[in-house]
Amino acid sequence: MTATTVTPPYTYTKSREAFDRAFRVIPSGIYGHQGPSEGCYIPQTAFPLFSSRAQGTRFWDLDDNEYIDYMCGYGPNVLGYRDPDVDAAAQAQAKIEDVVTIPSAVMVDFAELLVDTVASADWAFFAKNGGDTTTLAVLTARAATRRKKIVFFDGFYHGVAPWTQKLDYPGILEEDVAHNLYAPWNDLAALERLFSEHRGQIAGLIAQPYMHGNFVDNQLPAEGYWAGVRKLCDDHGVVLIVDDVRAGFRLDLAGSDHYFGFEADLICFCKALANGYNVSALCGKESLKDVVSSLSYTGSYWMSAVPFAAGIASITKLKQLDGPALFERLGTELTTGLVSAASDHGLHLVASGAPALFYLRLADDDSLMLHQEWVAECVQRGVFLTSHHNHFINASLTSADIARTVEVAHEAFGIVKARHPELG
Amino acid sequence: MTATTVTPPYTYTKSREAFDRAFRVIPSGIYGHQGPSEGCYIPQTAFPLFSSRAQGTRFWDLDDNEYIDYMCGYGPNVLGYRDPDVDAAAQAQAKIEDVVTIPSAVMVDFAELLVDTVASADWAFFAKNGGDTTTLAVLTARAATRRKKIVFFDGFYHGVAPWTQKLDYPGILEEDVAHNLYAPWNDLAALERLFSEHRGQIAGLIAQPYMHGNFVDNQLPAEGYWAGVRKLCDDHGVVLIVDDVRAGFRLDLAGSDHYFGFEADLICFCKALANGYNVSALCGKESLKDVVSSLSYTGSYWMSAVPFAAGIASITKLKQLDGPALFERLGTELTTGLVSAASDHGLHLVASGAPALFYLRLADDDSLMLHQEWVAECVQRGVFLTSHHNHFINASLTSADIARTVEVAHEAFGIVKARHPELG
Repeated sequence: MTATTVTPPYTYTKSREAFDRAFRVIPSGIYGHQGPSEGCYIPQTAFPLFSSRAQGTRFWDLDDNEYIDYMCGYGPNVLGYRDPDVDAAAQAQAKIEDVVTIPSAVMVDFAELLVDTVASADWAFFAKNGGDTTTLAVLTARAATRRKKIVFFDGFYHGVAPWTQKLDYPGILEEDVAHNLYAPWNDLAALERLFSEHRGQIAGLIAQPYMHGNFVDNQLPAEGYWAGVRKLCDDHGVVLIVDDVRAGFRLDLAGSDHYFGFEADLICFCKALANGYNVSALCGKESLKDVVSSLSYTGSYWMSAVPFAAGIASITKLKQLDGPALFERLGTELTTGLVSAASDHGLHLVASGAPALFYLRLADDDSLMLHQEWVAECVQRGVFLTSHHNHFINASLTSADIARTVEVAHEAFGIVKARHPELG
Repeated sequence: MTATTVTPPYTYTKSREAFDRAFRVIPSGIYGHQGPSEGCYIPQTAFPLFSSRAQGTRFWDLDDNEYIDYMCGYGPNVLGYRDPDVDAAAQAQAKIEDVVTIPSAVMVDFAELLVDTVASADWAFFAKNGGDTTTLAVLTARAATRRKKIVFFDGFYHGVAPWTQKLDYPGILEEDVAHNLYAPWNDLAALERLFSEHRGQIAGLIAQPYMHGNFVDNQLPAEGYWAGVRKLCDDHGVVLIVDDVRAGFRLDLAGSDHYFGFEADLICFCKALANGYNVSALCGKESLKDVVSSLSYTGSYWMSAVPFAAGIASITKLKQLDGPALFERLGTELTTGLVSAASDHGLHLVASGAPALFYLRLADDDSLMLHQEWVAECVQRGVFLTSHHNHFINASLTSADIARTVEVAHEAFGIVKARHPELG
């Protein structure tokens, strides 16, 4: 490949200026995983920091650089940014009412749709954050069983409430995590030992439907694993909580538990529930409904009608499109193309997890530095990936977008290869 | 007053039908304080359950009954439902972008506006629930001081996170509330004793700007009380957290701490921040900014651009209107009229708290049953009050609305008086 064919990398002048302003009035400038202080955007200098507009599968940064976006707002963008059908439903609702002293009956319509759609759902409870629903699930498990302990799988992420943080994190007390138990993923024997050691003390087990942690290849459940976990929970009277905040509605509209052939007692949804409109939901079994009713749990905007209307439109459209089948097809097409582009340069790219939520790792270097370099070259040429987090597919992605993505990735692999003659 | 002048009370056929549907698919049908299972709507049969539309200071229920609404969505409605200026700003932003992988720079604009507006704010951190900000404040206090204990005032409400619930609530562990200390409101000597008893162990004190609890007359701070609390916190190195979720932007656009003549270290905003668009904010002093940056704290929708744009439009309009002065004038006009209407019937209505957030109690009966009866007659004639919660004024309320409210209240007092000859 000659120098003349190389796309010039983007520059981020206006994003950096905005960040200087942000840093003065916002802790960290941008906080959380969307900011430069966390691990997802490495190397930081390769990434833009502020967006100016978004449409479909693309966004533009403040310097008007264009990106094919594989992070999808960290999940909420499931149909495409500014989907016309969802936005029309939201705008129509906004012209009627949103947050009112007594809720809109559209809340009931949305709950009925979720109960019809999600296999393990007999009811739905709406809130705003994914973490609102994981906390509600843990409170429910403790109230239902009158036990204290909660089992987590190593590599978990269930939000930022104190009970789901770690003891060495600032502000967290030993009391916050005193009843947390940790088990290795995909090891049924280890889980069985843990359940036996704490017999009669475990209120709930909380798990993502498969292990999609950061900085490591994602791991699908081993054959028979979920059936074994379900049986263990039944035998020990433990409430089985699936945290489907990240994977929900991308693997299976009936729930990721349904996708893997079992039924959760409680299932947490958020990101892909309403194509970005702000709503989350805990769904669950009839046997736990009265327990949830007994809890003290509410919030200022939890009955906003606009996100409910958006959620109805979004799930309806995902059903019409058969979203999960589309995501699997597009994700497979993309990851196959990327792996092949790496191979053209003698490099070994590993794609793991479900294609709808693919995780990438360039395996020619254990330090992950080479992977970061490759991602940096992609981002600066308009393909937005992150180094150490799973990605997301949305329904507006096309085969033409994927072809362009693979073209950019190919160029980026070439740049990395040329920079590292030691790779041979 | 003759029978012919009596307004016929509303009926709620469609609301009850919708509630039957809701009860099948939602725990409690409607949960939290907006539902019939909690204490605010008593007697339950007097209240509608679902709304069909809202505009300005009014909403309509599913049976098309019209209400002048003094609950304002439990606070978010500060300018009037569907305010045209806020909605136009939100719609314009929605046509550009909302939730995107990297945030919109409108986040920075909103943070700068809050820092300019709120006296004690050197920075702003955005989330979705009021409880997101009270939890962040407590984590910040603990991380900053490396101490554990948090002081609450009796009658507090700071959301539904486990640390701010009570030990006898379902699902709550003794560990969740192990380091909570409770003090009586407006008793500086008692607070001083508590601080001395736990010297070097108290991380933070969290308080609403005045005591606006349920089921009791609301209590403003005694003369010199907040200055004394501020000094005690300074002397003991305790982080002073003001929970301004309920009163914020109704007493003073510079913060309720500013209204009462002191400065908080951290101040929590939510309800009136964006006229119902879903956003909350923790603001605070420069000395705590790096501590907040060190915490693990984020959420799926926390950087949605539409609520930021709505918040900028809402605060800008509140400044143009001098919202707090308007709320005080309207609230005073209303409560004066209501007290006078009660007096016409020989009844004694007590209005407490700030006029912008007035609390009502009919004092002729210690059981509060008489008060509930009066509220029920008002609601069923189109004046939406609740029995045991403070109310809220919004900027679209007019003197004509207040005159109509007093007229309905007068009729309702007459009905209650006629039903209870023992009142003399």
